[in-house]
Amino acid sequence: MSSKYVYFFGKGKAEGGASMKNLLGGKGANLAEMTSIGLPVPPGFTISTEVCTYYYSNNDTYPQSLKSEVESHLKDVEKLMERTFGDPKNPLLVSVRSGARASMPGMMDTILNLGLNDATVQGIIAQSGDERFAYDAYRRFVQMYADVVMGMDKHSLEHLLEMKKAERGAQLDTDLTAADWKELVAEFKKSIKEHLGTEFPEDPHAQLWGAVGAVFGSWMNQRAITYRKLNNIPADWGTAVNVQSMVFGNMGDDCATGVAFTRDPSTGENCFYGEYLVNAQGEDVVAGIRTPQPINLHQKLPGDLPAMEEVLPECYQQLAAIRTTLEKHYKDMQDIEFTIEKGKLFMLQTRNGKRTASAAIKVAVDMVREGLIDQKTAVLRVAPSQLDQLLHPSLDPKAVKNIIAKGLPASPGAASGTVIFTADEAEAAAKTGNKVILVRIETSPEDIHGMHAAQGILTARGGMTSHAAVVARGMGKCCVAGCGDIKVDYVGEKFVARNGQIVKKGDIITLDGSTGEVMLGQVATVTPEMTGDFGTLMGWVDSFRTMKVRTNADTPHDSKVAREFGAEGIGLCRTEHMFFDADRIAAVREMILSENLEGRLKALAKILPMQKGDFLGIFREMKGLPVTIRLLDPPLHEFLPQENKDIETLAKSLGVSTQQLRHKVEFLHEFNPMLGHRGCRLGLTYPEIYDMQVQAIMEAACELVKNEGYSIVPEIMIPLIATVSELKVLRANAVKVCDEVIARYGVKIEYLIGTMIELPRAALTADEIATEAEFFSFGTNDLTQTTFGLSRDDAGKFLPFYVESNLLPEDPFVSLDQGGVGKLVKMACELGRAARPHIKLGICGEHGGDPESVIFCHNVGLDYVSCSPFRVPIARLAAAHAALGGGTDTTK
Amino acid sequence: MSSKYVYFFGKGKAEGGASMKNLLGGKGANLAEMTSIGLPVPPGFTISTEVCTYYYSNNDTYPQSLKSEVESHLKDVEKLMERTFGDPKNPLLVSVRSGARASMPGMMDTILNLGLNDATVQGIIAQSGDERFAYDAYRRFVQMYADVVMGMDKHSLEHLLEMKKAERGAQLDTDLTAADWKELVAEFKKSIKEHLGTEFPEDPHAQLWGAVGAVFGSWMNQRAITYRKLNNIPADWGTAVNVQSMVFGNMGDDCATGVAFTRDPSTGENCFYGEYLVNAQGEDVVAGIRTPQPINLHQKLPGDLPAMEEVLPECYQQLAAIRTTLEKHYKDMQDIEFTIEKGKLFMLQTRNGKRTASAAIKVAVDMVREGLIDQKTAVLRVAPSQLDQLLHPSLDPKAVKNIIAKGLPASPGAASGTVIFTADEAEAAAKTGNKVILVRIETSPEDIHGMHAAQGILTARGGMTSHAAVVARGMGKCCVAGCGDIKVDYVGEKFVARNGQIVKKGDIITLDGSTGEVMLGQVATVTPEMTGDFGTLMGWVDSFRTMKVRTNADTPHDSKVAREFGAEGIGLCRTEHMFFDADRIAAVREMILSENLEGRLKALAKILPMQKGDFLGIFREMKGLPVTIRLLDPPLHEFLPQENKDIETLAKSLGVSTQQLRHKVEFLHEFNPMLGHRGCRLGLTYPEIYDMQVQAIMEAACELVKNEGYSIVPEIMIPLIATVSELKVLRANAVKVCDEVIARYGVKIEYLIGTMIELPRAALTADEIATEAEFFSFGTNDLTQTTFGLSRDDAGKFLPFYVESNLLPEDPFVSLDQGGVGKLVKMACELGRAARPHIKLGICGEHGGDPESVIFCHNVGLDYVSCSPFRVPIARLAAAHAALGGGTDTTK
Repeated sequence: MSSKYVYFFGKGKAEGGASMKNLLGGKGANLAEMTSIGLPVPPGFTISTEVCTYYYSNNDTYPQSLKSEVESHLKDVEKLMERTFGDPKNPLLVSVRSGARASMPGMMDTILNLGLNDATVQGIIAQSGDERFAYDAYRRFVQMYADVVMGMDKHSLEHLLEMKKAERGAQLDTDLTAADWKELVAEFKKSIKEHLGTEFPEDPHAQLWGAVGAVFGSWMNQRAITYRKLNNIPADWGTAVNVQSMVFGNMGDDCATGVAFTRDPSTGENCFYGEYLVNAQGEDVVAGIRTPQPINLHQKLPGDLPAMEEVLPECYQQLAAIRTTLEKHYKDMQDIEFTIEKGKLFMLQTRNGKRTASAAIKVAVDMVREGLIDQKTAVLRVAPSQLDQLLHPSLDPKAVKNIIAKGLPASPGAASGTVIFTADEAEAAAKTGNKVILVRIETSPEDIHGMHAAQGILTARGGMTSHAAVVARGMGKCCVAGCGDIKVDYVGEKFVARNGQIVKKGDIITLDGSTGEVMLGQVATVTPEMTGDFGTLMGWVDSFRTMKVRTNADTPHDSKVAREFGAEGIGLCRTEHMFFDADRIAAVREMILSENLEGRLKALAKILPMQKGDFLGIFREMKGLPVTIRLLDPPLHEFLPQENKDIETLAKSLGVSTQQLRHKVEFLHEFNPMLGHRGCRLGLTYPEIYDMQVQAIMEAACELVKNEGYSIVPEIMIPLIATVSELKVLRANAVKVCDEVIARYGVKIEYLIGTMIELPRAALTADEIATEAEFFSFGTNDLTQTTFGLSRDDAGKFLPFYVESNLLPEDPFVSLDQGGVGKLVKMACELGRAARPHIKLGICGEHGGDPESVIFCHNVGLDYVSCSPFRVPIARLAAAHAALGGGTDTTK
Repeated sequence: MSSKYVYFFGKGKAEGGASMKNLLGGKGANLAEMTSIGLPVPPGFTISTEVCTYYYSNNDTYPQSLKSEVESHLKDVEKLMERTFGDPKNPLLVSVRSGARASMPGMMDTILNLGLNDATVQGIIAQSGDERFAYDAYRRFVQMYADVVMGMDKHSLEHLLEMKKAERGAQLDTDLTAADWKELVAEFKKSIKEHLGTEFPEDPHAQLWGAVGAVFGSWMNQRAITYRKLNNIPADWGTAVNVQSMVFGNMGDDCATGVAFTRDPSTGENCFYGEYLVNAQGEDVVAGIRTPQPINLHQKLPGDLPAMEEVLPECYQQLAAIRTTLEKHYKDMQDIEFTIEKGKLFMLQTRNGKRTASAAIKVAVDMVREGLIDQKTAVLRVAPSQLDQLLHPSLDPKAVKNIIAKGLPASPGAASGTVIFTADEAEAAAKTGNKVILVRIETSPEDIHGMHAAQGILTARGGMTSHAAVVARGMGKCCVAGCGDIKVDYVGEKFVARNGQIVKKGDIITLDGSTGEVMLGQVATVTPEMTGDFGTLMGWVDSFRTMKVRTNADTPHDSKVAREFGAEGIGLCRTEHMFFDADRIAAVREMILSENLEGRLKALAKILPMQKGDFLGIFREMKGLPVTIRLLDPPLHEFLPQENKDIETLAKSLGVSTQQLRHKVEFLHEFNPMLGHRGCRLGLTYPEIYDMQVQAIMEAACELVKNEGYSIVPEIMIPLIATVSELKVLRANAVKVCDEVIARYGVKIEYLIGTMIELPRAALTADEIATEAEFFSFGTNDLTQTTFGLSRDDAGKFLPFYVESNLLPEDPFVSLDQGGVGKLVKMACELGRAARPHIKLGICGEHGGDPESVIFCHNVGLDYVSCSPFRVPIARLAAAHAALGGGTDTTK
């Protein structure tokens, strides 16, 4: 700890600077910086964060030297301002603001006009020549101070104000006179004495120390503690306190106050963008009582009030020059606050401005062109999670929304359509050109064709990685899942939403998959443009990242979309989705219902050419890029109907008795299908299924190599391995089939056989498993389920509560749980590499598209991540951030 | 490797000994040992296991010096026997036997009469004076050699023998004459030449090397490889070859052969026990064609043929003396083989005898009394897994069984009763004094009262740790689970077993829970006596073990049973079983169906006094021993009926609409209840439930401390923790309730709060969790489910296949998977202790009663294991074995 606690800034000189955020907080550091580069900043000083730390380590006391340091710097301010703190003739007033390293709502924000009392108010009257202004400022100060520093109940003083207005027959505060405000100040002080038993401090120095103590005290209030916890901000960072001489934007028509961005935060366009109010204080802009005016003509629309460029042209030119200075200095788009007091401009704040995704891209690319920043910096300026906004249509922000329910934002984008409750009807309606929203209690693989046909999907049950959510994200289709607000009545063909609102089949609703909102009627959507800057930036992204990005795709169409988004291969091609196609499911069911090997082989022979066709299509689309194909994973009962009616229909079509079919369905029933007879367990008990799939893969590959000159190295992935013994057997089976096919075609082709690591046991024994696996692909969806003992499909009932209550920092199905699941992944990487140094490592869970998880994957040294086609650009950018040491994605 | 490969034994001198099993195999080592201590062993030599290893490391060749060593020792044998190998006048015949360290079925066993050819057979005729004997021996040798050494198809030669018998009109082999045998030898050789294209070797030395090669070759045959794999025997142990001069028990009525145990292997009684046959070879005893006779009068029953003691009294006395010598020498009960050739006794084998559990105990305790062994040795002589036999009734081995189905041996013991299909009817029938067997497709917690009432439980579905299996074992009740052979028809009140056998309600069946067999009708059972020796042994057991043994018990009754079995506390008291009692379930359901906190609190207030009563009972029964109580664990839907009929009934009784109740049941439905809204997730979303339970626990404890002078330290266990954040909240809640109760009673009482470690994430972050937990109890059932991604209730469809196919060495729900789940347990112990050095560690999964798992628990340093009451003695013994360094339970 240094022995210096207070840092002065004023008139071109400052003891601090922008690099001292840890010590001075964001606000204090930038005030000092602006002062140093010659901008007009009202002078003041910052009490450092070390004092806060000292305060809490020493029973709420200050370091001994603090008092004299503050007094000395207060004198410096008085000198520069040519006013004196507490001087009845020519008083100095100050503001006191908190300022932590990171912006922290929940802490004390601001006390203005500090230094006013019955004596100094006279000096303000003299300075301003405006008694009403002076008493208004005085009463505002008393109100603010009583509330924030003294802990007085807000409502008592507001009540007095209302009484006064009633007494005077006044509608607005502005209807009150100087005398009224003066009376109110006295009444406020009396009420404070009555309620708190203490006098309102008249001594400006007592006021100052009271305010400083209140800032430090607010660091440990409940709201601040909760906010820090939620945002992982350590308590020992502490806050700084900024004491700054007051300037007034409300002393007349040559006064103003405003906020501005150095570029358009919505589009990123390189033009000055801001709002201001004449004769107003900062809080008036925020309160929204008066309509702010544009700062310049560029922005001004017909009907707008005059721009600052017109009203205060000199000040505007000065501000425009400052804008350029700031951008050159900070090399980023700035968000600024300013005040004009009697024609004189003062800067009160600057910080990096928040922006939309497209603005972020445009600003970054423009600044490279302008020579302000380099490409690396540009890449790091765009938050990967932001890109999501650019990849889906979204609701027109200006549209009116009648929200009738809210669920989980399961798959981004927005869509409107008529409500339909079954997949078949959805498909039929879509064929006739209708846009539909498929509404289900939950979806199952049998609904896939309906989901394809629909504009969006709404489910009453299921979490962020429920079937509906995962499939919808894979399709890039908007989905609101786990919407407990709605009660679906299939029989009545309707659902009941909030407040008993009934929505029938055929009614139009709109979904916002980015917020989880369900709206009645059609709400307009907008499709963000994907400008050339986006492509430019992604080019730089790819030049910096070292980790590959693949996609999860099961069809030639998805493969194509993913390639367009920059996918460098397929990390997960699920073969079972292909089984659900209407023209195949019959053969699949025939296979499942066969009582013997012969029957199964017969049915599999029908499926073989279809699977082969799938792989031909996908291999062609991927043009030689690596493709990892997972063999059959889900339990067989997923392919059979569960409802009596459907069982009857199927039995008839298959020519078996309903009872026989029902027995089979019952026999295949599982209590916990997630932990059941699936994955490699099927491959071991019914080796003929995997044999058929491997044959289809290899025949497709060999054909393309032989006849079309492709160069393909198929990656065959065996799911749900728990022990090396399973993989050993299945690998041997697969090798046998592969070698047989290769010999038959007489081509030279290599292939890899590997496994998903999706069970804790596989991760724990990855060294053993690596002896039989040429690659690992971390199936972090299932790995999260088993590591947490948490079913994705059932977690909707308590996982939101967990996240809200901060029991979990985030939904672990969305962002990889690094402390638990990640520990297993890391362990498996290390064990796997120890046994097979060049083993290929990747991830194919939903986490492959989550920026923080992608950074984790880079850090543990994975060769690639694989994600939904629509998240490929996000993963690419996150991988670049990771490679550039960009750390965690703090923008989320 | 030594340069000596062959070890001679004969006439009181041997180069080997019992301690050289690794080098000479079990048989060879003991032949040498018996020779050394002066017993009459036909001389011979052992080719060491090192030759086997050499053979396989050197392309099936022998060490150079082997040939000369064998020839030299063969000469020694010739000298002692005064016969010469291959001498037509006075030939030496030998046997060649394999002999590995561990007995290995699947390897070549024996070739007898080696050295016979057309010339030497004449010498045998001369020696024996019995031409028929000689040619019979010759043809046996040719048959055996052709089969085992030359690889000739058995049936060809057997066919020739059958033809010969048909030709001669003979019924039995004994009807054939010397001439017939002679002809057959020639026909055999001809057939061999025809089939194999090679001559049968006439040269005795060629015969010998052929046999030696065949023994080594059999070490790598498929059956031997499989057996080794199944029993974890390393391939590089190799086998030895024993070459021994032949003695004949079939040369006339002064010849005999027999097997004996030095004590009764069934009861352990200290009396000589064995069987013999006059004029027979060893294989005749095994083949079971002739009825063996008792060796002594002690054993002889009315109607038995004469005892050896009567027929060959001198030989018997000699054998009885040898018995004493062997027991004094080996200090264990021996299993011996002997042959008497023309009135002269020869010992062919000795080894430690297999015995029943009660015999093992009696022999061990008797031998301590006799001064043969010490207490430690006695404890190590009894295999923990054997004790299971002593703790349940079993089928009378003499009873006739009509087996109609076979399932999993889910809970040991045997029981008969009338078939009943519902729990209610089972309870009703039991109340009127009927013995019933409850037959269900599967059981659920609602069936508990019926399971209690039944003698045994039979289910069509579910694995070794399905609900039925776990509960039945807990109750010490016999259960056959997952019996796929039966098809249960609830509506028709019947089930169909193998071969279409229909069993109706009211029919009597018998279950053997130790074998999984289901029998039609009543089969007599026997209750093994628990003799005083058992108590004596368990006293020694307790003096050696260092790890405590607790029990899993939910009722005062179970607690009492467990205390009688030596439990030192309760490691797992499940509170939910109490919820199912008929007089409580109504209040429980009321609580679940309440739509708000107020309603739940009202219902919980009804449950509180009942739960308190439970704990009072259990605490009293446990008399101050530690009791770990787990708060509510299962998902709430387990407490609601699932069938439409039951829902209707319940709705009526609760006065709610059927539809309302059905909605609630549907709402609570889970896809994967194992991974659902259960355990601490309930405690977090409905804190009032845990609050009530903690209150009940603490009030019960405080009352006993205050009014009855007990000293109790309740251990409150929070289930299904995945993150420390969960435990932090729940711990704080529990502490609040505890401290409130303690203050109210004004007593001094301590309590512990800890958690189950039953999810991989908990194990992986055990260091964090230990900061909030005073103890860990490893819930290895669920930990196995999640680590493997394997549902206990669904695994029945493929887990048996896994174990049969050697994909898993054992059912991981029966014996802890040390490589995977055990790795997590070990990690959690280390992390937990690092964060809290004196953290109490225990296990409460089913594994706590499995000997190998208990030894693992000792080795990772757990403070206790907890298991079903009926397995407490097994766990105590296993813990003693572990403390004595007894290693794994190889007897399993």
